[in-house]
Amino acid sequence: MDNLYAVIMAGGSGTRFWPLSREAMPKQLLRIDGGETLIQQTIARVSPLVPTDRIYIVTNKNHAEPIRFQVPEIRKENYIIEPVAKNTAAAIGLAAIHINHHNPDGVMAVLAADHVIRHKDQFLETLKNASGIAKSGYLVTIGIRPTRPETGYGYIEAGEKLEIRSQKSETEEADAPIAFRVLRFVEKPDIETARAYVEAGSYYWNSGMFVWRAGVILEEIGRHMVPLYKGLKKIESSFGKGTEESVTGEVFPKLESISIDYAVMEKSDKVVVVPADLGWNDVGSWTALDKISNRDANGNVITGNVVDVDSKDSIIYAANRLVATLGLKDTVVVDTEDATLVCRKDRAQDVKKIVAELKRRGAEERVTHRTVVRPWGSYTLLEKGERYKIKRIVVNPGARLSLQMHHHRSEHWVVVSGTARVRRGEEVFFVNPNESTYISMEMKHRLENPGKIPLQLIEVQNGEYLEEDDIIRFDDEYGRE
Amino acid sequence: MDNLYAVIMAGGSGTRFWPLSREAMPKQLLRIDGGETLIQQTIARVSPLVPTDRIYIVTNKNHAEPIRFQVPEIRKENYIIEPVAKNTAAAIGLAAIHINHHNPDGVMAVLAADHVIRHKDQFLETLKNASGIAKSGYLVTIGIRPTRPETGYGYIEAGEKLEIRSQKSETEEADAPIAFRVLRFVEKPDIETARAYVEAGSYYWNSGMFVWRAGVILEEIGRHMVPLYKGLKKIESSFGKGTEESVTGEVFPKLESISIDYAVMEKSDKVVVVPADLGWNDVGSWTALDKISNRDANGNVITGNVVDVDSKDSIIYAANRLVATLGLKDTVVVDTEDATLVCRKDRAQDVKKIVAELKRRGAEERVTHRTVVRPWGSYTLLEKGERYKIKRIVVNPGARLSLQMHHHRSEHWVVVSGTARVRRGEEVFFVNPNESTYISMEMKHRLENPGKIPLQLIEVQNGEYLEEDDIIRFDDEYGRE
Repeated sequence: MDNLYAVIMAGGSGTRFWPLSREAMPKQLLRIDGGETLIQQTIARVSPLVPTDRIYIVTNKNHAEPIRFQVPEIRKENYIIEPVAKNTAAAIGLAAIHINHHNPDGVMAVLAADHVIRHKDQFLETLKNASGIAKSGYLVTIGIRPTRPETGYGYIEAGEKLEIRSQKSETEEADAPIAFRVLRFVEKPDIETARAYVEAGSYYWNSGMFVWRAGVILEEIGRHMVPLYKGLKKIESSFGKGTEESVTGEVFPKLESISIDYAVMEKSDKVVVVPADLGWNDVGSWTALDKISNRDANGNVITGNVVDVDSKDSIIYAANRLVATLGLKDTVVVDTEDATLVCRKDRAQDVKKIVAELKRRGAEERVTHRTVVRPWGSYTLLEKGERYKIKRIVVNPGARLSLQMHHHRSEHWVVVSGTARVRRGEEVFFVNPNESTYISMEMKHRLENPGKIPLQLIEVQNGEYLEEDDIIRFDDEYGRE
Repeated sequence: MDNLYAVIMAGGSGTRFWPLSREAMPKQLLRIDGGETLIQQTIARVSPLVPTDRIYIVTNKNHAEPIRFQVPEIRKENYIIEPVAKNTAAAIGLAAIHINHHNPDGVMAVLAADHVIRHKDQFLETLKNASGIAKSGYLVTIGIRPTRPETGYGYIEAGEKLEIRSQKSETEEADAPIAFRVLRFVEKPDIETARAYVEAGSYYWNSGMFVWRAGVILEEIGRHMVPLYKGLKKIESSFGKGTEESVTGEVFPKLESISIDYAVMEKSDKVVVVPADLGWNDVGSWTALDKISNRDANGNVITGNVVDVDSKDSIIYAANRLVATLGLKDTVVVDTEDATLVCRKDRAQDVKKIVAELKRRGAEERVTHRTVVRPWGSYTLLEKGERYKIKRIVVNPGARLSLQMHHHRSEHWVVVSGTARVRRGEEVFFVNPNESTYISMEMKHRLENPGKIPLQLIEVQNGEYLEEDDIIRFDDEYGRE
């Protein structure tokens, strides 16, 4: 498996899980099913087979920082940054030229950062098998054996079984990996068609997970998508010349926005499907919680500070505040600190329409949460008024913010727990619980937690302009400008 | 009309309009249909006929202060305080002995503080007519001519028409008030029965509004409810002796908890009904908004910061935060700063079950809002953490808080708008926007707004015990201990 690379597609935009997901905090960064975030689970799942130095993350500029914060084990060089979102063909092509450049024998497993896979051992087994088949030059798709007539997924129709020589002895032939030629890819079916597919036994859910040699997918792109191929080659030619970022930034935005399914998979004659039972879910909307969480006796999935009376088959998620529900049926309620969604279950796919409307209105609730995670800790916006803003700031033990200055605001800090070490101009002093200090406008300052417990302080900002971009950084531990 | 008194029943407990209503902020104190609060509307509605010195308010100790704040025109002597809630018979009896003591010819109109009445002129006309009839010794109930087969109200069946001599000339006889003997009171009917009542034409909604001579209702209580009558007489005997409060406090809690309908109206032979078209609604649950508010083209009643896609016949109320709704039908969504209710419309009556569950849990969201109104302004709880609490405090121009001291907390104040005059121990100084000050534990202090615009400040409290009852008041403008 020395040539196996994992490419984690982590460019999700955070619309379908609003209001829990936001543009700045898409689904892959969330704890959807408790425990670790989806991207942390994804990395952990593939790690037994692929060491972290061969795991690549494809994402955009804005999400790279919070992802690095969640999975610090992936080194910065393994991030492939899309200058703009251009669908999967371009993103996968970009990853392929990087891996091919690095290792001409490289086999890449393309994995989504935001799916749930329950059967971890089967997943690794499937990946091993698929990787073996991919070495022979096939484009392998992972097909999930359907467990229900799901109308929310695309299907793959399998044809003739592929003759694969087992790497084990003939007596163990039953263990040889199974793969089929792909007859066709089909779009999300209606319920009747879905039932027929499940009955037929030769249809699989299209998981969007692929395994292939980087060189092979590039050849196939060259065969079926000439402009994309030429663009990728141009980017590749900049590698090692120090112009990679600028050339990528120039070429990438002009590439066609098309999925790899349309661009290559439906056209290539090298496509095969490896069937698998993975307990897989693409977590495509809030109703996925019905599948990946435990339902109570009334069929509800209830999380958080909820008082329910007589609801049935509903999903009720309270991040923090109190939510009371009464007599609901097939309803989704998601409450976050600054926004609440209430939606009929069969409309959960249309949450993107809400997000589109919020975009039209320029509503902040589309973009960020009240609590924003930073490399040094987090801050929570408690209130925003005319000429003032109140934040609770948590600085992790040993962490410190950048040495900074604001042109348009002054800041009052009241420490409520832990100890702050404050640099203010040339002074350096400590502020203890129930003590306060004041940073005037244009005063250089730095906040640090030298202690062993989190530092919590309340910041009251005063000024005419109170946005996050009024910050001049002179020095930063986390490489931010 | 010199003998006409209005008795406003304002003892509501704030369960059915939760989370907008709270124990400390019941329905009568809310702006349910925009504009003034329900009790302000009630007082304004009756004022053209009854001067404020003859308007009495029956309520409990906790609600008297916020009511006084909303209707300062009613003098303190006109509050009749129930030591405990004892249903309408005892409350009305208590009001009757006060009015009878004050004026033996007194006619009292018993009105709810939390109903909506759209037709103000007809209301005054009805009250005048009912008052004329009541003078003759009748117990008058106001019966609302039904406009739909409502199953949420009790009904009154009218019998024989009362012969009333018109006070005007014979040619104007058509203007004589109309009243009927009451055949019976009936409980909330099922829909079939309700339809039959509407069709029959002789049934009226029981509005719970009554007009009678104080002396007559006391006689009838004496006839049908001897223990209540004796209790009231005992309380009356304390009037003018300085022991009124203690005797009331001793006698009242022992009185039977029963409605005036059961106790007297269903038994007395003096009961008549005066029909009226008042655009009346008892605002008994959230679904009342369908009747008293304007519905949009999809049948929705939407208030506040709401993004809706494709909902129908729903009530969506957003006090402050963003609420997004998608594809709802016959659903009630009520969002407040600290709690959200989502309920099926036909279960709106059961919101009291939610409140009962909150009581069992000891949840604060049952009792108070995040924003609490005080005579001097208001405060809003922004966050409560371990050993700290953050409030935004607004002090009205010219107002000042009591001279006070706290045993268990210190307070940091950061002024964000307006000017504060602060007394701290023996010092007196001003704090301007973007300035702060600190009040240590056990330091006597007083906060005042000497200016012409509201003073807003952020208070960060630190301490081991941060409840409202840690306050020692030395001097207070508003008569609080």
